[in-house]
Amino acid sequence: MNVTLRGRTEHFRTVAFDARKNSVLLIEQRLLPHEFKIVGTKNFRETALAITDMVVRGAGAIGATAAYGLAQGALAFRGNDLKKFSAHVEAVYKTLGTARPTAVDPLNAMHQILFAMAKGESVAEKQSLALAAAEEFANEDARHCEEIGQHGVKLIRDGMKILTHCNAGWLAFVDTGTATAPMYAAQAQAKESHVFSDETRPRSQGATLTAWELAQQKISHQIIADNAAGHLMQRGEIDLVIVGSDRTLGRTGEVTNKIGTYTKAILAARHKIPFYVAIPLSTIDWKLKRGFDIPIEERHEHEVLGAWGINSRGMREYVRVANPTSGARNPGFDVTPAELITGIITPVGIFKPKNLWKHRHKLGYTK
Amino acid sequence: MNVTLRGRTEHFRTVAFDARKNSVLLIEQRLLPHEFKIVGTKNFRETALAITDMVVRGAGAIGATAAYGLAQGALAFRGNDLKKFSAHVEAVYKTLGTARPTAVDPLNAMHQILFAMAKGESVAEKQSLALAAAEEFANEDARHCEEIGQHGVKLIRDGMKILTHCNAGWLAFVDTGTATAPMYAAQAQAKESHVFSDETRPRSQGATLTAWELAQQKISHQIIADNAAGHLMQRGEIDLVIVGSDRTLGRTGEVTNKIGTYTKAILAARHKIPFYVAIPLSTIDWKLKRGFDIPIEERHEHEVLGAWGINSRGMREYVRVANPTSGARNPGFDVTPAELITGIITPVGIFKPKNLWKHRHKLGYTK
Repeated sequence: MNVTLRGRTEHFRTVAFDARKNSVLLIEQRLLPHEFKIVGTKNFRETALAITDMVVRGAGAIGATAAYGLAQGALAFRGNDLKKFSAHVEAVYKTLGTARPTAVDPLNAMHQILFAMAKGESVAEKQSLALAAAEEFANEDARHCEEIGQHGVKLIRDGMKILTHCNAGWLAFVDTGTATAPMYAAQAQAKESHVFSDETRPRSQGATLTAWELAQQKISHQIIADNAAGHLMQRGEIDLVIVGSDRTLGRTGEVTNKIGTYTKAILAARHKIPFYVAIPLSTIDWKLKRGFDIPIEERHEHEVLGAWGINSRGMREYVRVANPTSGARNPGFDVTPAELITGIITPVGIFKPKNLWKHRHKLGYTK
Repeated sequence: MNVTLRGRTEHFRTVAFDARKNSVLLIEQRLLPHEFKIVGTKNFRETALAITDMVVRGAGAIGATAAYGLAQGALAFRGNDLKKFSAHVEAVYKTLGTARPTAVDPLNAMHQILFAMAKGESVAEKQSLALAAAEEFANEDARHCEEIGQHGVKLIRDGMKILTHCNAGWLAFVDTGTATAPMYAAQAQAKESHVFSDETRPRSQGATLTAWELAQQKISHQIIADNAAGHLMQRGEIDLVIVGSDRTLGRTGEVTNKIGTYTKAILAARHKIPFYVAIPLSTIDWKLKRGFDIPIEERHEHEVLGAWGINSRGMREYVRVANPTSGARNPGFDVTPAELITGIITPVGIFKPKNLWKHRHKLGYTK
């Protein structure tokens, strides 16, 4: 999407590739929203480290980074020995595949690259197929988000006020994003909207990443404390909620997403406000039978006990907010049942959550 | 309540009076939870300033501060001229009464002192009556909180997990607090409980003041992000919710309290968890007919856009968390309808919110 730097607006993808330098180009997300910087990794090890250290985060974005990283590793190989090349590619795959142990997106993305490479007969051919497959993966991710936007935009009427939670924006994907895609599509159709971005404590992705995106895209928006949505709904100030999802159960329609999503769904249901979840097909889990079985990551308590921001000297700093002798609970995600969800916006259409299973073949069902 | 300083546990009130020095003693709440300090005001002007600058906050606490401040001002008068004394007291009343323009507690508290003083015939007698009345006001505030605890403790079973929001603890009153009173009473009866204290963004009173109180009182507790309560309720980890209230409508049972209270009430209702509001009688509004008519203060956006805390050098600092080019909405309070409230805990018993009007004479009804 667009970023304006020193008055000039340019289009950027979250993840891209510089073939001349054999380098993966990433928006350094840890510096946002206070600084915009593109970093180029020198080799696949640096690319893996960028995933580990969260230079890049978000399902689609880390998938594309691993895909490019695998191509980058393959392209760095010198020689024609197919056996040695295979051993090298395996090492690259393992390094990138363990960069974020719990994430499945890097693995799924790399499998696509490996399948494509298998068709090549020489090292050079495999290298070139790897890069083409990585580019295709990234383009497909961006295209799917565009398609989510085209379906989701039908929900947005001119003048609507939309609530979103956390960041399911273009920074979490290669481009456009999922929850934000309908908003960007509405803008393209000159439909005015106003977005309320939940702060999304404890990591504040709504106040930092989503707000930065919306500001860059010149979409009217305001940040609210996570406590405020209920009041705004009660006073008729929210018309629609769109969020993303880390994992959606294809069998039940339950949605796992950032902590607080479940609360917003309950609030929306009480106020009869439509609550939509925008997802790429890759995040549908066709195996799991109960949302209750999804393990909820308990994150470090320092996230709840303080906050990161820019101090008066312009430096990034963590401040301890909470009482120094108190601890915290910090569940990272929650599970929203299907009954609270009006619809799931996918690249192939909008579905009632209970109907995902019925339409599974259209939705990329895998056993 | 108790505060432990350098290993020694002492009892403190939030607001007290040093008659020898004619000084109002206040816990400097702006330094909490990182530093505990008692400040003594030199004169009624300093006392008013302490209210304005929020050295002291909370309905009961600022009421008692104004009551003591009025006595302090009266006691500082030299001479026997009743006319001059009256003019002086009026000036003191005005100074303290305008220290927090929207608060009614200082005015109501001072009216009690003025009524008591009216019975005196000389300056000396009026001065002594003023101090006695201020002491009585403070003692009554503490006693009412104790009584709330005695009624509320019946709701707490051994091992319960209790959620609270914001700070309706002893720091908001002279002692004991309202929402916290049943927890302290349960502790006194050796009933074990565990308290989840909502962080309460944007001002984080739950993470700072409530957590500090509970830690000082050695009550098992953890801070949670405001986003986490729904998930904990879904997983059966919360048995009871108790919050305070700034204004409760005697005619409808609607409760105004810190932003986010309404959300917690909706969550509790969905999960069939009892939701109680603990209040002193002075916060019941017998006039207003609709909660919708309560003006909701829109506070400064910097509260939402950043956080105050202690930096790595041990200094208190504000950090800007949010995207620098984004703004915020910041409603300070919300209104919870009676249907979501299981009961109102008062010093004279627990009532269904719809029954407040029926029991108005017991509840200190004033036209």
